[in-house]
Amino acid sequence: MSKTTGRVTIPTDLDVIDQTVDILRRWGADAIRDCDGTEFPAQLSQVGAKVYATYYTTRKDNAWAKAHPEEVQQCYIMSPFRCAPESGPLAIELMEGISPELMQVNTRDDIRRWWEVIDRSTGAVVPPEGWRYEEESGCVVIAAPAPFHEYTVSFLAYLIWDPVHMYNAVTNGWTDFEHQITFDVRQPKTREHAKERLRRFCEEHPYVDVIRFTTFFHQFTLVFDELKREKYVDWYGYSASVSPYILERFEQEAGYPFRPEYIIDQGYYNNQYRVPSREYKDFLAFQRREVAQLAKELVDIVHACGKEAMMFLGDHWIGTEPFMPEFASIGLDAVVGSVGNGSTLRLISDIPGVKYTEGRLLPYFFPDTFHPGGDPVREAQINWVTARRALLRRPVDRIGYGGYLKLALDFPDFVSYVEQVCDEFRELYANAQGARPWCAKTVAVLNCWGRARSWGCHMVHHALYQKENYSYAGVIEALSGAPFDVRFLSFDDLKEDPAALEGIDLLLNIGDGDTAHTGGAVWEDAGLSTAVRRFVYEGGGFIGVGEPSGHQYQGRRLQLAGLLGVEQETGFTLNYDKYNWQEHPEHFILADAAQPVDFGEGKKGIYALEGTQVLTVRDRSVHLAVHDFGQGRAVYISGLPYSFENSRLLHRAVFWACHSEDRLLRWFSANPRVDVHAYVENGKYCVVNNTYEPQDTTVYTDSGSFPLSLGPNEIRWYSL
Amino acid sequence: MSKTTGRVTIPTDLDVIDQTVDILRRWGADAIRDCDGTEFPAQLSQVGAKVYATYYTTRKDNAWAKAHPEEVQQCYIMSPFRCAPESGPLAIELMEGISPELMQVNTRDDIRRWWEVIDRSTGAVVPPEGWRYEEESGCVVIAAPAPFHEYTVSFLAYLIWDPVHMYNAVTNGWTDFEHQITFDVRQPKTREHAKERLRRFCEEHPYVDVIRFTTFFHQFTLVFDELKREKYVDWYGYSASVSPYILERFEQEAGYPFRPEYIIDQGYYNNQYRVPSREYKDFLAFQRREVAQLAKELVDIVHACGKEAMMFLGDHWIGTEPFMPEFASIGLDAVVGSVGNGSTLRLISDIPGVKYTEGRLLPYFFPDTFHPGGDPVREAQINWVTARRALLRRPVDRIGYGGYLKLALDFPDFVSYVEQVCDEFRELYANAQGARPWCAKTVAVLNCWGRARSWGCHMVHHALYQKENYSYAGVIEALSGAPFDVRFLSFDDLKEDPAALEGIDLLLNIGDGDTAHTGGAVWEDAGLSTAVRRFVYEGGGFIGVGEPSGHQYQGRRLQLAGLLGVEQETGFTLNYDKYNWQEHPEHFILADAAQPVDFGEGKKGIYALEGTQVLTVRDRSVHLAVHDFGQGRAVYISGLPYSFENSRLLHRAVFWACHSEDRLLRWFSANPRVDVHAYVENGKYCVVNNTYEPQDTTVYTDSGSFPLSLGPNEIRWYSL
Repeated sequence: MSKTTGRVTIPTDLDVIDQTVDILRRWGADAIRDCDGTEFPAQLSQVGAKVYATYYTTRKDNAWAKAHPEEVQQCYIMSPFRCAPESGPLAIELMEGISPELMQVNTRDDIRRWWEVIDRSTGAVVPPEGWRYEEESGCVVIAAPAPFHEYTVSFLAYLIWDPVHMYNAVTNGWTDFEHQITFDVRQPKTREHAKERLRRFCEEHPYVDVIRFTTFFHQFTLVFDELKREKYVDWYGYSASVSPYILERFEQEAGYPFRPEYIIDQGYYNNQYRVPSREYKDFLAFQRREVAQLAKELVDIVHACGKEAMMFLGDHWIGTEPFMPEFASIGLDAVVGSVGNGSTLRLISDIPGVKYTEGRLLPYFFPDTFHPGGDPVREAQINWVTARRALLRRPVDRIGYGGYLKLALDFPDFVSYVEQVCDEFRELYANAQGARPWCAKTVAVLNCWGRARSWGCHMVHHALYQKENYSYAGVIEALSGAPFDVRFLSFDDLKEDPAALEGIDLLLNIGDGDTAHTGGAVWEDAGLSTAVRRFVYEGGGFIGVGEPSGHQYQGRRLQLAGLLGVEQETGFTLNYDKYNWQEHPEHFILADAAQPVDFGEGKKGIYALEGTQVLTVRDRSVHLAVHDFGQGRAVYISGLPYSFENSRLLHRAVFWACHSEDRLLRWFSANPRVDVHAYVENGKYCVVNNTYEPQDTTVYTDSGSFPLSLGPNEIRWYSL
Repeated sequence: MSKTTGRVTIPTDLDVIDQTVDILRRWGADAIRDCDGTEFPAQLSQVGAKVYATYYTTRKDNAWAKAHPEEVQQCYIMSPFRCAPESGPLAIELMEGISPELMQVNTRDDIRRWWEVIDRSTGAVVPPEGWRYEEESGCVVIAAPAPFHEYTVSFLAYLIWDPVHMYNAVTNGWTDFEHQITFDVRQPKTREHAKERLRRFCEEHPYVDVIRFTTFFHQFTLVFDELKREKYVDWYGYSASVSPYILERFEQEAGYPFRPEYIIDQGYYNNQYRVPSREYKDFLAFQRREVAQLAKELVDIVHACGKEAMMFLGDHWIGTEPFMPEFASIGLDAVVGSVGNGSTLRLISDIPGVKYTEGRLLPYFFPDTFHPGGDPVREAQINWVTARRALLRRPVDRIGYGGYLKLALDFPDFVSYVEQVCDEFRELYANAQGARPWCAKTVAVLNCWGRARSWGCHMVHHALYQKENYSYAGVIEALSGAPFDVRFLSFDDLKEDPAALEGIDLLLNIGDGDTAHTGGAVWEDAGLSTAVRRFVYEGGGFIGVGEPSGHQYQGRRLQLAGLLGVEQETGFTLNYDKYNWQEHPEHFILADAAQPVDFGEGKKGIYALEGTQVLTVRDRSVHLAVHDFGQGRAVYISGLPYSFENSRLLHRAVFWACHSEDRLLRWFSANPRVDVHAYVENGKYCVVNNTYEPQDTTVYTDSGSFPLSLGPNEIRWYSL
């Protein structure tokens, strides 16, 4: 492989100037960046690489924040539940369980208007006359609560320490520094200040080519407790995007009175498992539009200064989630984000409306990995091979690394391995760029969020593991590297646009019942259930994972039970005898499957209706079953953590459900650990070994097949 | 042990007359009975034993049934769900999946009034103008259904073969017999006929001492499919207790129009897991009152003929469930029922308002057990030792056996073993009778059913195992033999009567969320949650098993989360970090526990709130935890199948939750396989080995302790 250059960004710092130049050359990098906690050495502005400057729109300007405390960013918080005593008042300490270094109760704005005390035993709001706030104790005191009712207080608090700054400081053990306060750029004085400040920054940093916004205005919800442990994190959370200033404007637009409960949501803060309320959807739409408009003003300043504007996907990204229509209007040149797996890669690479995307590969050059005895090469290998599956479906335009370069230099094997990754990435990009890879089917993930949470559905915080959802996130991860055109469709899309299903071969509904991922009460809308039944009846495919369409209504727990051919026992049908338990393991879908299949957390109490073909039963619950419905077909899977075997199982399930069993052997590898991707427009295809061991396979192209042996991690390119 | 006699009933038949006399003597029996499929030999009326005659109020009179087809018993049935096509009518075959030998569609009564066609995609009723019934095809045809909506038809069908007769015939392979038709004794002509027939039966059977009603008027719901397999069974089901005649009367009493849906209940037929609707509760109350009144008329006839009236607990017992206030008004002398375990024993022995109770022990003398290679002794041992735990808390007054005596005679070991059981029972009864055994605590099981389903909560069909509920039924089984005064309390009791909790030390709430056993939406009534919180706060104990108070409302999945100290993850709190996972296995509750504890099906996603002491975590879910709430204490258990160890765990949990750890060692055995029961009023106590192996223990009385070794199954009696 001849040496190539470009498409790679590296971090630097004042203490590694010469080494930066050396790494630039070895990795073929063409861009250099600073990070939170590092400084960019001026000398490096002359080495011919693009310079990125991390820019903090909302912090690193405590003088301003302290001078304008009323424009410090605010967050809605719900107190713990507290039970009223037999008689007498109830005092609820608002900040119990929250780091006092992170937040401060906002009593500046009218607490009678912006706070809400709720009797959680009835859902009733306690009128402001019924309670008062005691500044000295930090408690709301309810004068005459109903005995033994539980109460909560929803209140506004200032973010007096930026949560990401706090996280970085605590994680890296920083000492002797000032807590950076988050200010709210949406508010009038700070808005003007922020523009001026950005203009000044651009002027004062002439050598900077790219302003890397980290990010715009509102941090995703991230709360720490008194022990500075993470208490609450929601990567998509809007709770810290509020202020009376914003909420009054929202109220005007929405045309109905704002209630704190719209954000507080019983303490669930509208997390992505909650079926979103109309009010919350209105609020998201309002915020996205407003954020996009103001972000555009900042981007315009950057452009006016002759620089590029890049957005970091994460941190203060609330309102700029990139799959919404407003996003393109911001005019950003680029988006960069951290790549934790295939899903997070696609979350970046699929972004429409920017000139280029960049993936920050792992590991970050931080002491948690780069310490004596650490194995950064292994982490890098896992990260690369995991991301590469998705890269081959849709590459980011650049890759890069972050952290303290100095730490990485102590690991020469790591430096070598990254050199190899950079070359491999450039070759891959050259072969795949611009072309739409061959897609066997168009599949759509159907949930309450649709495009807004493309690839991010089931993400609580980036790619972090959750026991409760890895069996569902695994499906998204499998799709991120699969030869399908993958779309994300909301129930609203389906109800509002009869053409929403046009061009789609198969629908997926993935998750636990009564969550936004499966729909909950939206199934009580016959328009929805009808649209899905019609789609499948007329020949479409359907794959349901977990408790698809799970919502108790009109005699069904799974609203699509008739279509899926399975139903869930919750006690209500315990009196019905169930006879359909015979396994039929010799099925097309299971032909390459690991035995026993790993269904992850699985589900309990799933039973097959008559006429359904059961493929796998475990512990008296159906884990895999198939069912014909009209001209279409449905597959039920109890859970599907990501693995090569499960990815193949899903692949086959899609083909089976689309009546395409006979079209499987095209751009296909007999060995599930090996993938084949074709870029017909570019006249290229590749065969890639996704493992760290050699693999043998048979490769099927569009015109034949051949045997092939691949080395560990090997990717082999062919011309058509 | 000297030979005793009495308190035992045996079956007989024409072919075992001499042997019956022999068995009478050996087992000390004092009553003889016939069974379904046997005949009583007249000679045996002279042997000095009481004679029971099985009496079928609702069948064994096909001449009558055929002459009055309009008074054949009816049943409400819901057709399968059927999906409407894209266009055109939808035909739904009513009897699909139901044995045509069992039922026949009732078109005699006005189908426009008594049937209901429902769009299950919306819950809307299709007006009668929108559908018609095609007699020849057996289909309801909906003329213009909404495309791809699902529909069901609720209709009335005649029971043209009595379900129990069908079951007995199919199970025992009967041939060459007539199907017995069930007639509805509640209807006017049959009512008069039934009384006359009973009077005649009494007169024609002068040697009969006891009329054993099997039972009164309405069979519990029992449906068979086309293959004569059981399709649906609900031991407490009222679906087969209906007719237009009855329903019109109900309508008059209730004061609102009757709807088939009140019985059909979306196809769930108000099974005991369903939170009962107001209308269903009204209907149950109406039926109970009406059934009791008519049953009394029959009992009066029996009494007028100088005989006793005994009711069989089961079969046509709907409306006579014995824990309701109306029951005593029937004036029955006795109740007899089958003893499957401790819970079913207490279901009989705890019945108030009758002169005596009788337990039919297992195995029945049927060929399924009594065949070459069968081991009836083993079955009898298991049954006896299982039932004895409960007998020692509250004995039935008599025991007995059923089936074909001839079969048992071929197993001399069995005959010997039963002889021993009979003697042991009589000794036990002599020592325990009349006295209230010493109770350490008064505990109440709290659910939607309360007293009405005392001991029967979680029973789908008698003591039959269900994977979905053995982890809950296990608690009831443990209580059946525990030294507690056990009550069953409904949420309605709690709401209607502030004194309902008086004298109760501890509440239990056991089952899956959103079921009648845990309450579902009843928790949205703050009066209820407040009553329970107050009870515990003021010092009461609480044990929650499974998903106690499980119902999504106002920020909680477990409505008593604050009291229990645990909450359930359904995705909505996935963003909250959870830190309380440290196990504290050295706890009073676990001191005698099997390790690892068998939690049965357990639960997923249970996590502890701050301040809760976690005892057991498994697979990242809390299975056992304890929590103080005010002056009271709560224990969370994920599930508790019945075993000696789990029974002890529950025992200790009750003591711990009642702040009575220091009072454990009184009428107590150190070895959990051995029980101690004290009958202070009778000056007796016993120590009993519940296993088939010898056991050593330390026995604690109220004044000291002593070591003891017991033989297999041994029970040893002491005087105080």
